[in-house]
Amino acid sequence: MIYKATEYICYIKSITMNNIQERISALRKYMERESLSAFIVPSGDNHFGEYYQDHYACRRWISGFTGSAGTFVVTNNKAALWTDSRYFVQAEKELIGSGIILMKMKSEGTPSISDWLKTECSVTGRVGADGALISKSDAESLRRSLNPLELILTGDPFEIIWKDRPVLKFNKVISLSTDITGESIDSKIKRVVSHFPDKQKCAYVVTSCDDIAWLFNLRGSDIPYNPLFAAYAVIRDSSSFLFVNKGVIDKDMGKELGESGVEILDYNTLGDFLASFDSSYTIMAPDEKISELVYRKSISGGAGFVTDNTKGGIISMLKSVKNETEIDGFRRAMLYDAVAWVRFIMYLESELENNPDALSEFSLSQKIAQIRAAGSEFYKGESFHPIVAYEANGALPHYSPSKEHDVKIQNRGMLLVDTGAQYICGTTDTTRTFSLGEPDELQKRDYTMVLKGMIDLSRAVFPKGTRGSSLDILARGPLCNTGRLYMHGTGHGVGHYLCVHEGPQSIRMEENPVEIQPGMVTSNEPAVYITGSYGIRIENLILCREYEGNQYGTFYNFETLTMVPVDKKAIEFSLLNKEQLMWLNDYHEMVYKKISPLLNNEERVWLKARTSRIS
Amino acid sequence: MIYKATEYICYIKSITMNNIQERISALRKYMERESLSAFIVPSGDNHFGEYYQDHYACRRWISGFTGSAGTFVVTNNKAALWTDSRYFVQAEKELIGSGIILMKMKSEGTPSISDWLKTECSVTGRVGADGALISKSDAESLRRSLNPLELILTGDPFEIIWKDRPVLKFNKVISLSTDITGESIDSKIKRVVSHFPDKQKCAYVVTSCDDIAWLFNLRGSDIPYNPLFAAYAVIRDSSSFLFVNKGVIDKDMGKELGESGVEILDYNTLGDFLASFDSSYTIMAPDEKISELVYRKSISGGAGFVTDNTKGGIISMLKSVKNETEIDGFRRAMLYDAVAWVRFIMYLESELENNPDALSEFSLSQKIAQIRAAGSEFYKGESFHPIVAYEANGALPHYSPSKEHDVKIQNRGMLLVDTGAQYICGTTDTTRTFSLGEPDELQKRDYTMVLKGMIDLSRAVFPKGTRGSSLDILARGPLCNTGRLYMHGTGHGVGHYLCVHEGPQSIRMEENPVEIQPGMVTSNEPAVYITGSYGIRIENLILCREYEGNQYGTFYNFETLTMVPVDKKAIEFSLLNKEQLMWLNDYHEMVYKKISPLLNNEERVWLKARTSRIS
Repeated sequence: MIYKATEYICYIKSITMNNIQERISALRKYMERESLSAFIVPSGDNHFGEYYQDHYACRRWISGFTGSAGTFVVTNNKAALWTDSRYFVQAEKELIGSGIILMKMKSEGTPSISDWLKTECSVTGRVGADGALISKSDAESLRRSLNPLELILTGDPFEIIWKDRPVLKFNKVISLSTDITGESIDSKIKRVVSHFPDKQKCAYVVTSCDDIAWLFNLRGSDIPYNPLFAAYAVIRDSSSFLFVNKGVIDKDMGKELGESGVEILDYNTLGDFLASFDSSYTIMAPDEKISELVYRKSISGGAGFVTDNTKGGIISMLKSVKNETEIDGFRRAMLYDAVAWVRFIMYLESELENNPDALSEFSLSQKIAQIRAAGSEFYKGESFHPIVAYEANGALPHYSPSKEHDVKIQNRGMLLVDTGAQYICGTTDTTRTFSLGEPDELQKRDYTMVLKGMIDLSRAVFPKGTRGSSLDILARGPLCNTGRLYMHGTGHGVGHYLCVHEGPQSIRMEENPVEIQPGMVTSNEPAVYITGSYGIRIENLILCREYEGNQYGTFYNFETLTMVPVDKKAIEFSLLNKEQLMWLNDYHEMVYKKISPLLNNEERVWLKARTSRIS
Repeated sequence: MIYKATEYICYIKSITMNNIQERISALRKYMERESLSAFIVPSGDNHFGEYYQDHYACRRWISGFTGSAGTFVVTNNKAALWTDSRYFVQAEKELIGSGIILMKMKSEGTPSISDWLKTECSVTGRVGADGALISKSDAESLRRSLNPLELILTGDPFEIIWKDRPVLKFNKVISLSTDITGESIDSKIKRVVSHFPDKQKCAYVVTSCDDIAWLFNLRGSDIPYNPLFAAYAVIRDSSSFLFVNKGVIDKDMGKELGESGVEILDYNTLGDFLASFDSSYTIMAPDEKISELVYRKSISGGAGFVTDNTKGGIISMLKSVKNETEIDGFRRAMLYDAVAWVRFIMYLESELENNPDALSEFSLSQKIAQIRAAGSEFYKGESFHPIVAYEANGALPHYSPSKEHDVKIQNRGMLLVDTGAQYICGTTDTTRTFSLGEPDELQKRDYTMVLKGMIDLSRAVFPKGTRGSSLDILARGPLCNTGRLYMHGTGHGVGHYLCVHEGPQSIRMEENPVEIQPGMVTSNEPAVYITGSYGIRIENLILCREYEGNQYGTFYNFETLTMVPVDKKAIEFSLLNKEQLMWLNDYHEMVYKKISPLLNNEERVWLKARTSRIS
């Protein structure tokens, strides 16, 4: 799945515009009490992850805008919402009647939040924001850009004004054995500590829930799709501290963690704990992952602060390089998932033929989850909200089917299916696009160009030190040759039974200093979107491996992890060159070899045909 | 030609180690007088270009090291020379007996200059360097890294200690009409001024001789290969000032410049001129192109200073995008040069057959220059020291043939020829590698992989906004597939009858924020170097052009400017895919079409065979 901040599933449907105006009034009352001339409400929570609990959906609650990315800003007499081009149409619709001005980011004439506030507030204005939701780096840049206005970091106003606010969930946590994670907590912590500038004196603050889940070999279920739980951690040389709602850790787990030198403390005590470090200590964290509130607490006892300048932070960097146990787990997860995909595609084809009226985007999106759940005891749920997008819907990169606006699927056009699963041993993310009727020439060309790009990136061999931005053109280039372009990245990192979008590496046009290294799992998903007609995306997960080392240097390549046959119906074979054709044949041969033993006879015959060689 | 800082041609051969020690003693006396504990002598001159006059070869004079890249540092009792891996062997040889310690850059255990000085000098030490040879940005970082040692910027000690120092040459300058440059001085200056933050108040200091040559449509001959002349300039909204040795500009030229609002001032008066700007002015320049000395002078009258943060500076950026007249000039230059190459290759083949004993690297390097000079009235000389490298010499990327160590060429092995020319309408830079005998399997594979990479980059279509680092893998990838790697960039910018190495764009693995834009001319030169055996490089110049603009965006591609047939002898055709084969056939067809009308009958027959289609 291409990277996006995701929609909420449980959208509050009862919003009326009266509500919105009342809510804004309530916030203005709070502002008045705190002598604030404006207030900024960002998206997201105090852990800065992709998904968060409804408890933190304050920006949605107060603005009525349900898109995942947006910032709401209110002054004494105006309110505005900044969002990006993905959400212009949706925001326009959702803001009608609210009096909230839509600020279209990167459109001509749209001011930045700071510039707008400087025109709306008097020079001595005080601009408030919840210090728990603003990272240290964002606070720094906001302070600079708001000047001469003052940035005032407050507590959480929604505790007061949001009466029926959902409570925070703290679900039970599970512990993963090293048979699954491949590395003990001790060993992981030792590796983190080895990056400290001064082992004795450093206290490293971890605020990302996925960093914590990885580090402590734990998984949770507080938020959808990502098996995470709300927690903080502090790592020291000799000991480490896990801040959770104590109810989520059972006795045995607590004992086990204790044996690894991990002390369990209450989720709400992080600030006081950090404040106890005096000037003989140095607090360390990545500036973009520690909130301004936690940062200020951490230096309030006199401790120094040093920024972790590793892109994404030390722990994300370590986490991104999978060990052999995790890699084996990924490979197994891909087998389970491929079996589900085979059954899903067979179901789709059979229904199209025998029961066409029953097929819809939404029913298909449920079907694949059912097939997965029935097929593997290791299945833990979906890794993101499934995309089943028929014809013109496929051209909307961030489309998701819904029960309310379901779309029938027929014997024609193109169907884009992008889904992924969590298995206890790994996370999957696969896109396939199917021609349900007879593809026309343009569809075939587009499909083949996407496939060429996907294959060229899969075949890449590159020297150690190569960044993702140097590889992107391999996937993007063939489409550009036909004057087509997708406006998203080609690849995102993928976690091991963790977040399907994981940093710090990426494969995209924009520079990202992180080198692609052996053990990193990244998606490979070139695409084309023909507005009003169709979308085509083909996505595999690829694993970086060492290819060769010699006097010229060290070379890496990719192993394709995903094992799902590529629909051949829309391939224009004359457009594939011989290296691409060979790759496709070899890939299909491998898919058959690996997946056929897990299938019944009928399925095996089907797969044999789908993976047959093309010459 | 791959980017390198180049050897001096007129190497002073009379150096003995006694000389070196005497010279270092003389510098130490100067240091004593100035109360300095150390002195840093960098390579280069006060204009920070690739080539400079012998007058500025101070580092070579004092150390005896003739390589182009290196920094000499002396303390009261020690002397050391920092250079990079290209020069380790040469420096070891040249420093024998001098007492100078060789500091191998990027080798384990080698300290930085600053770290070394901090261990060698007392805490209160004063480290001297000529302020005219250290850029503002280098001075800043040196000051930081030397701390607590103090950086003292001095005058030029070599004025005193180098008794027979070559005098600075100031050769006559020529003026180019807009028929050649495509743009008047006025227009260029207006475009520069349009980038000023405040037109009225800004005074822009230009120190790069190639920026000045471009801006004023002038060319010189003070240094080899680059048609430049020693000059500074200051650009203001209403008027501009050219600082030259007044003898180099004749009366008519002076009048013409005057009509464009250009005032001619003496080369040595820049400092005083800048000191006259008071606090109502802002001086502007790129930090890496203005010397610390000029910078200090420029703010000494009270003026402010603002850094030109455009990569390479505004003028380099404008200069890199060629206009249609310049592009047409390039295309013409390529025709002249291709005719010379055809004659050169025919000569090589005929001599190999009929007169093999006469052939040598050095004689061939002279031959191509002779052929060029005889072939075109527009020929102005070579654009760099020619590389004719036979067999194992080809594996040394920075090898140049010399009369002293000439090497015979025979009917076997591979010959790499990398030469370029200055024509009044454009600059060329071409590499071809020839199989003089029967290439073996490995040679064929290597040759074909280099060719595949060169073709894949030539064929690239990419979206507006793409940087060179995103394209590099296209040229480098095929070689990586066979576990080979070249350790230099794939492409450098090329000037229009100017420097063959021109910024700010590049095509290389390392990030460079400059986008490849229509009008930019860049080299495309993948290579492979097999130590002790052979080197293969194939180089064309490619011009970025607009390819297509539509609802998906704007796309660019490349037009290959170089028109020299690619030797087909070593191509393993089974390794080319159909797109590559088609490109090669199309290219050869175009070469024949464009060049054959300029050839005699015999030459045309030869070219027909060399450019025949392969199926």
